[in-house]
Amino acid sequence: MRRRNFMSTAAVGAAATGAASTLAAPAIAQDRTEWTMVAPWPKNAPGVGVNAQRVADRITEMSDGRLTVTLYGAGELVPPFESFDAVQSGNADLLHATPYYWVGKARALNYFTTIPFGLTATELPAWLYFGGGQALWDEVYAEFGVKGFYAGSSGLQAGGWFRNEINTLDDLQGLKIRIAGLGGEVLRRLGAAVTLLPPGEIFAAMQSGAVDAAEWVGPWNDLAFGLYRVASYYYLPAFHEPGPGLEVVVNQESLAALPNDLQKIVQYAVSSVANETLADFTYHNIVSLDPLIEEHGVEIRQFSDEIVQELGRVTAEVMEEEAAADELTGRVHAAYMDFLQKAAAYSARMEQVGLSQRSAVL
Amino acid sequence: MRRRNFMSTAAVGAAATGAASTLAAPAIAQDRTEWTMVAPWPKNAPGVGVNAQRVADRITEMSDGRLTVTLYGAGELVPPFESFDAVQSGNADLLHATPYYWVGKARALNYFTTIPFGLTATELPAWLYFGGGQALWDEVYAEFGVKGFYAGSSGLQAGGWFRNEINTLDDLQGLKIRIAGLGGEVLRRLGAAVTLLPPGEIFAAMQSGAVDAAEWVGPWNDLAFGLYRVASYYYLPAFHEPGPGLEVVVNQESLAALPNDLQKIVQYAVSSVANETLADFTYHNIVSLDPLIEEHGVEIRQFSDEIVQELGRVTAEVMEEEAAADELTGRVHAAYMDFLQKAAAYSARMEQVGLSQRSAVL
Repeated sequence: MRRRNFMSTAAVGAAATGAASTLAAPAIAQDRTEWTMVAPWPKNAPGVGVNAQRVADRITEMSDGRLTVTLYGAGELVPPFESFDAVQSGNADLLHATPYYWVGKARALNYFTTIPFGLTATELPAWLYFGGGQALWDEVYAEFGVKGFYAGSSGLQAGGWFRNEINTLDDLQGLKIRIAGLGGEVLRRLGAAVTLLPPGEIFAAMQSGAVDAAEWVGPWNDLAFGLYRVASYYYLPAFHEPGPGLEVVVNQESLAALPNDLQKIVQYAVSSVANETLADFTYHNIVSLDPLIEEHGVEIRQFSDEIVQELGRVTAEVMEEEAAADELTGRVHAAYMDFLQKAAAYSARMEQVGLSQRSAVL
Repeated sequence: MRRRNFMSTAAVGAAATGAASTLAAPAIAQDRTEWTMVAPWPKNAPGVGVNAQRVADRITEMSDGRLTVTLYGAGELVPPFESFDAVQSGNADLLHATPYYWVGKARALNYFTTIPFGLTATELPAWLYFGGGQALWDEVYAEFGVKGFYAGSSGLQAGGWFRNEINTLDDLQGLKIRIAGLGGEVLRRLGAAVTLLPPGEIFAAMQSGAVDAAEWVGPWNDLAFGLYRVASYYYLPAFHEPGPGLEVVVNQESLAALPNDLQKIVQYAVSSVANETLADFTYHNIVSLDPLIEEHGVEIRQFSDEIVQELGRVTAEVMEEEAAADELTGRVHAAYMDFLQKAAAYSARMEQVGLSQRSAVL
């Protein structure tokens, strides 16, 4: 950890400053701490990078610089997918990412990002904060010496960009598609050739024909990537990412070394950014859909009932296997599914009906 | 304002302390400020009171007591509906409430809570933070010398408790109903006898037959109120409160008197509580619906398409009149409606479809 402790620059006088290294610091001494933050995305990437920067800035501002956080984007300090290792080892103090990036370390982490047909962007934090989800997440991360905080969601994502229409299950046979998460495994079992290209390679792979289809995030980020230039059919919404959660992961020792007020500042800075991250994606996705349709001639499609049913059937299969992976994943699965069943029954009577009534009258 | 400035109890010595009242405070002096917070609900009311207390606690904790906030619930310091006056006059420094409680002072405030068939609980903060809504809200509150911060939402509310089924528009004729907000005006125009009883009187009025129907919040709060004991039919969801916003309103002078770090702590404490307030309502509403149905035999209903269409037609009429109320309300209306149209078109292709697909496979 690149951390320096020194007297406040507003310190009281030469005598106190001189004494700091050999005597107990007087009560007015202010430790100043510098934290290093990493992320697997570029610092100013819309939605993710910008909100990582907000976390860093808010901690620094609320602590009046007593805890100063410097963000390093993808590759600036460590390669993107080594962010977790950097925080675990203490080379960095915290990161902004999404749990399923580290699923190679702990299978249960899928549930804290998203699963196909799973919790929405409002249901996930409900489960984490009030339904026991955070305690399970803490258990997963405890063995790595880190603590995870929910950092918001990109909201319901888009199903992806397809060069050709997907009308029947046959159209999935041999389909070369870039897709993240457990949704990829579902499509693989339905005959697709699934690849997980890094974001920076998606456009070129679509353009060259290396893939026939690709999902990225949603209208805002997809518009920015120019994906409408390489495919005409935009399938909405995603079956596989109903409300992916973002995270801030903090090294436990770094956190424990802070006084209580700074620990609270870290926790609530992340929670405030969680609030605004979902708002950020929601606003920009909403205003980005019209330009895709009106200016770029994109054709909106949705997966047929037949395809959705089959995606659902295979998802259940895949999730049962996840649950059997290890004891902790099994418990996370059981807790998540219990709440998901209740949440789905609730939304079927509430949000689903409310949105349909609003559509009918506006 | 009941505010005391005194030297930190961790102050450095008699000399500095003695000098504080007559000389410029030395750099190490810590001003300690006490803020008074009021709310129109009881301090420990589920969802609202508890989250008001979270705001107070987080400001106090993150500032390490440099800014200590004490919450007074309904009637403890001022009558519930005088909370705004108390903050405006400086008798209190801040409040936790919902903007449409003060609609008698500024008609535009309805839009910052909710309107019938309006923005959802995720769309409202999207508009406020990123779509220009906050700037308009600031304009409304500037003339009162206060500043509003979005403090979360109770989510999509319930349509209410009815002693008898509502099958046709005729069933609304003469219906004695307790309902809040512009939805009440909509029902009045459709022939209902609308009253706005204070929350504490709803149960008794239903029991005595003084009203035939009443809406309160949603399954969590309605279960706590025992409304299932006085009516069998529970209409879901509300047409009139798709995602009501809560607020923290701060006296501008109180806020400006704070150093920058404490101003940020106030702002982000509220934003963090906004995040967790929606999660709180979402979780507890979801787990409260089953007990209402399974244990208390409540019959769930939804308003018919015919009734929804008519509610929509009359809502449009009412909102046009709101827009004409004054110049500022007109501008707020235009901005809100512009985003609402885009949001509704978006959700019709996204959340509405996604929830319906999830229902189909789970």
